[in-house]
Amino acid sequence: MPFKVLTPEEAASHIFHGATVAFSGFTPAGSPKVVSKAIADKAKKEQEAGREFKIGMITGASTGDSLDGELARANAVKFRTPYQSNKDMRGAINNGHVEYFDMHLSGLAQEMRYGFFGAIDVAIIEAADITPNGEVVLTSGVGISPTAAKLAKKVIIELNSNHPKFIKGLHDIYQPLDPPYRKSIPVYSPDARIGDPVLRIDPSKIMGIVETNAPDEVGGFAPVDEVTQKIGDNVADFLAGELKKGTIPSEFLPIQSGVGNIANAVLGSLGKNPGIPPFKMYTEVIQDAVVELMKNGDITFASGCSLTVSPEVLKNDIYGNFDFFKDKLVLRPQEISNNPEIVRQLGLITINTAIEADIFGNINSTHVLGTKMMNGIGGSGDFTRNSFLSIFTCPSVAKGGSISAIVPMVSHEDHSEHSVKVIITEQGVADLRGKSPRQRAEAIIENCVHPDYKETLRDYLMVTSGHPQTPQALDKVFNMHSEFLTSGDMRNTKW
Amino acid sequence: MPFKVLTPEEAASHIFHGATVAFSGFTPAGSPKVVSKAIADKAKKEQEAGREFKIGMITGASTGDSLDGELARANAVKFRTPYQSNKDMRGAINNGHVEYFDMHLSGLAQEMRYGFFGAIDVAIIEAADITPNGEVVLTSGVGISPTAAKLAKKVIIELNSNHPKFIKGLHDIYQPLDPPYRKSIPVYSPDARIGDPVLRIDPSKIMGIVETNAPDEVGGFAPVDEVTQKIGDNVADFLAGELKKGTIPSEFLPIQSGVGNIANAVLGSLGKNPGIPPFKMYTEVIQDAVVELMKNGDITFASGCSLTVSPEVLKNDIYGNFDFFKDKLVLRPQEISNNPEIVRQLGLITINTAIEADIFGNINSTHVLGTKMMNGIGGSGDFTRNSFLSIFTCPSVAKGGSISAIVPMVSHEDHSEHSVKVIITEQGVADLRGKSPRQRAEAIIENCVHPDYKETLRDYLMVTSGHPQTPQALDKVFNMHSEFLTSGDMRNTKW
Ligand SMILES: CC(C)(COP(=O)(O)OP(=O)(O)OC[C@H]1O[C@@H](n2cnc3c(N)ncnc32)[C@H](O)[C@@H]1OP(=O)(O)O)[C@@H](O)C(=O)NCCC(=O)NCCS
Ligand SMILES: CC(C)(COP(=O)(O)OP(=O)(O)OC[C@H]1O[C@@H](n2cnc3c(N)ncnc32)[C@H](O)[C@@H]1OP(=O)(O)O)[C@@H](O)C(=O)NCCC(=O)NCCS
Repeated sequence: MPFKVLTPEEAASHIFHGATVAFSGFTPAGSPKVVSKAIADKAKKEQEAGREFKIGMITGASTGDSLDGELARANAVKFRTPYQSNKDMRGAINNGHVEYFDMHLSGLAQEMRYGFFGAIDVAIIEAADITPNGEVVLTSGVGISPTAAKLAKKVIIELNSNHPKFIKGLHDIYQPLDPPYRKSIPVYSPDARIGDPVLRIDPSKIMGIVETNAPDEVGGFAPVDEVTQKIGDNVADFLAGELKKGTIPSEFLPIQSGVGNIANAVLGSLGKNPGIPPFKMYTEVIQDAVVELMKNGDITFASGCSLTVSPEVLKNDIYGNFDFFKDKLVLRPQEISNNPEIVRQLGLITINTAIEADIFGNINSTHVLGTKMMNGIGGSGDFTRNSFLSIFTCPSVAKGGSISAIVPMVSHEDHSEHSVKVIITEQGVADLRGKSPRQRAEAIIENCVHPDYKETLRDYLMVTSGHPQTPQALDKVFNMHSEFLTSGDMRNTKW
Repeated sequence: MPFKVLTPEEAASHIFHGATVAFSGFTPAGSPKVVSKAIADKAKKEQEAGREFKIGMITGASTGDSLDGELARANAVKFRTPYQSNKDMRGAINNGHVEYFDMHLSGLAQEMRYGFFGAIDVAIIEAADITPNGEVVLTSGVGISPTAAKLAKKVIIELNSNHPKFIKGLHDIYQPLDPPYRKSIPVYSPDARIGDPVLRIDPSKIMGIVETNAPDEVGGFAPVDEVTQKIGDNVADFLAGELKKGTIPSEFLPIQSGVGNIANAVLGSLGKNPGIPPFKMYTEVIQDAVVELMKNGDITFASGCSLTVSPEVLKNDIYGNFDFFKDKLVLRPQEISNNPEIVRQLGLITINTAIEADIFGNINSTHVLGTKMMNGIGGSGDFTRNSFLSIFTCPSVAKGGSISAIVPMVSHEDHSEHSVKVIITEQGVADLRGKSPRQRAEAIIENCVHPDYKETLRDYLMVTSGHPQTPQALDKVFNMHSEFLTSGDMRNTKW
């Protein structure tokens, strides 16, 4: 092996103040775990010595605590893109210590290549295996690794023996050319393989290898409760109904699903509904529930950008039965897993979670009460805008009922009414297709809003009179939010 | 010729109350002109006789006054999609007489095929020529004609001798298959031809032909003034600078440009700037300025969905010199001209006009003061979201300075911060790439806002303190709008 074995500290010595560093992985799956901590330690030492030390940090999506958490706590990040979901990084962003650029995940790789983020100084890439000529088998997440490895001046490999070498073939590495030379991406079904099983990295750029054995820092889910169960059932019943009506083709269509507790419940309900045939997924994140449904035969194939499953599921279910899974799974770069062209081509049914929706169908995916960044838009826009049928789900209320998730105007808009086709809460389903704003407001209030807030929102429509096409009263539009910030309960809202 | 020649009234007899009717064309170019008027007359007669008569109206985009204007004045429209720009139709929408579903133009054809708009009863299609077996040469706009003709139970042809038969070959008619059978669309350069020069319509569905000789009802433009000139120059200088820096490839990239006075000025400036090489357009609407630049050699090819040029330019310049233009122009269905996949593939530089922008880069394309529908989102979202570089332009103020086009929060959001890369006014350029919301606010206020409003908006940022990532104060966010509605001048705004 021509590559030096480095300690994490030696690896971190390649990272300098002001460097732009790109990291492998997608969610905690496949993201570096030890060099990141060494960079945080270096930052602390430098700062203690009175020297500035902050980096620009580009990842595929969110990462584990060893990356976002460590670097945020060390105050070692000046710039962060494109997504995060770590408590400490979120804090650093919301208190202004980190400049956070929240963006559509499908666009990141091309915009790095276009030079919109400047030079990439170092890429840190987790690998399951590497050959002397730089052929890398990635681990549980692909993210932007192909682009990072191609653009970076230096590459450091975290060789993680937690992932067996026999997973070679799980990945499909493909990078399109850039305009004006780009051609279409020939993914015509979720199981298409169009690229390489390995990521080829110029060996002369590889500074060395850091050996590790560390599981992905993937957390578990809350068990399905009454509300998430009802949301899941509403989604499944709605899709089964559309299939029966013939507005969804009888072959059914591939599913994309967001991550989290609601997604978990939705997948469970889809699996159980007798009106939904076994299906394929073309999604971003493959989570535990998908693996469960694959074992049952309810899901026949899953294409994703990462295996964001709990360490036990990864070890016992997937790697432990790789013969069963190896022709049913593929991991792709996020430029491909989230590609708008492919989403439209495959005609995905997309199901994502909103923080807040408004009565017209606009969606807030990112900001609590309009000012506090939660995570970021992630892939939700890549999928929503281009899907066959885009569904947003959320519980109708938050914070014990003191917040209605449905308001006159979202406090921050990430997805416009033009891309959102269906809204589903535990209360019911609002099908927004072909409806004018006024008709959408009626459908959402009557079908999705919590009973505690139906009258409030009906009253809102009354005070907007004079604007029948888009009934809105700008001077009152955030009264519900202001009420919550004042009295702690939106139920007290007056118009 | 096996087809009956019909009077407009005979043609209109196929249209019944409650029918969904799809019309050819895109903008006034290629939209029907006489059958529409006959439908309006029929509606008035029916209503006078005490019978309801309203149709569902689907077009490619806006149309001429003989279609949108006549039907709106006759109160003959129940449902309207996807776009309009007619004074009377706008009035009917805003007073609640018409249910208007404002949508991305690229999505319409597929959603009609998916059945989201129900059955299409009749299609009315303007043609330059037709053969006995139903091969139709379209006229100056393609729009949704291929889909309309395919889905409609009955087709009526308006054969318009204003368009010469020798334009056969101007159109490239291509319809993708639907999921799960869709394949990529092989348009790898603006001049690619992938389809048929004619639209093939099942002759058994053709109810007859109405003969006309009527020019497209395309209006002229206001002459370039100081403000639009400065916006145009700012766009051209910015692009020339990016080209020089190398962030735009040296081959340059195809341009998409919106319609109207600003677009007119921008095209003029692009043509004159020595730093911009001759370029190709891949756009929605080809307007007079494009033709002018083609004659000069500044534009070498233009792909669009319509030739929305003044009748003289169409007759004298294009049809009068068809040998010069015929290999430099192609008209495509809007599903192809606006296709996100192709927009991304070609790496378009897109330039569209905003009604209003906010300090974070969100854009309002549709609603004046949040409640009054202007036109609709049109193709702006198809292009903006998927382009290499998306630019929005607008004058920094409206209504003689009493309105700032840049506000704390757009009163209606059509394009989110996630898709908007550059904002340009006559004041200057704000490059938003890679900037956090706070940094974007600073760039927009310092570079794009009118001097009369700079202090106001700087002060707004002060009152939002405590939210450094996304500095927003929900209870004050529409104070500028409320001030305008109260005192008639946003300059009086207090926070
Ligand atoms: C939207 C999103 C944040 C929801 O995630 P989740 O885990 O289901 O969210 P929760 O219900 O736990 O809510 C998160 C927090 O917001 C709060 N919240 C929820 N709705 C709220 C509302 N309308 N107003 C204010 N706060 C709200 C919750 O109370 C909770 O706060 P807490 O952590 O202080 O308890 C998450 O799905 C996301 O980040 N989406 C964007 C990216 C994406 O969609 N990716 C997948 C597609 S590829
Ligand atoms: C945005 C759009 C309406 C601008 O069109 P335009 O012709 O340049 O607009 P104008 O500057 O004439 O403004 C239109 C009206 O809005 C008013 N207006 C403009 N900015 C305003 C603002 N910030 N607040 C309130 N009113 C405003 C103008 O005063 C004018 O009103 P008037 O008709 O009563 O005088 C138009 O480009 C559009 O419809 N875009 C969406 C579709 C699209 O982008 N298509 C092309 C891409 S494929």
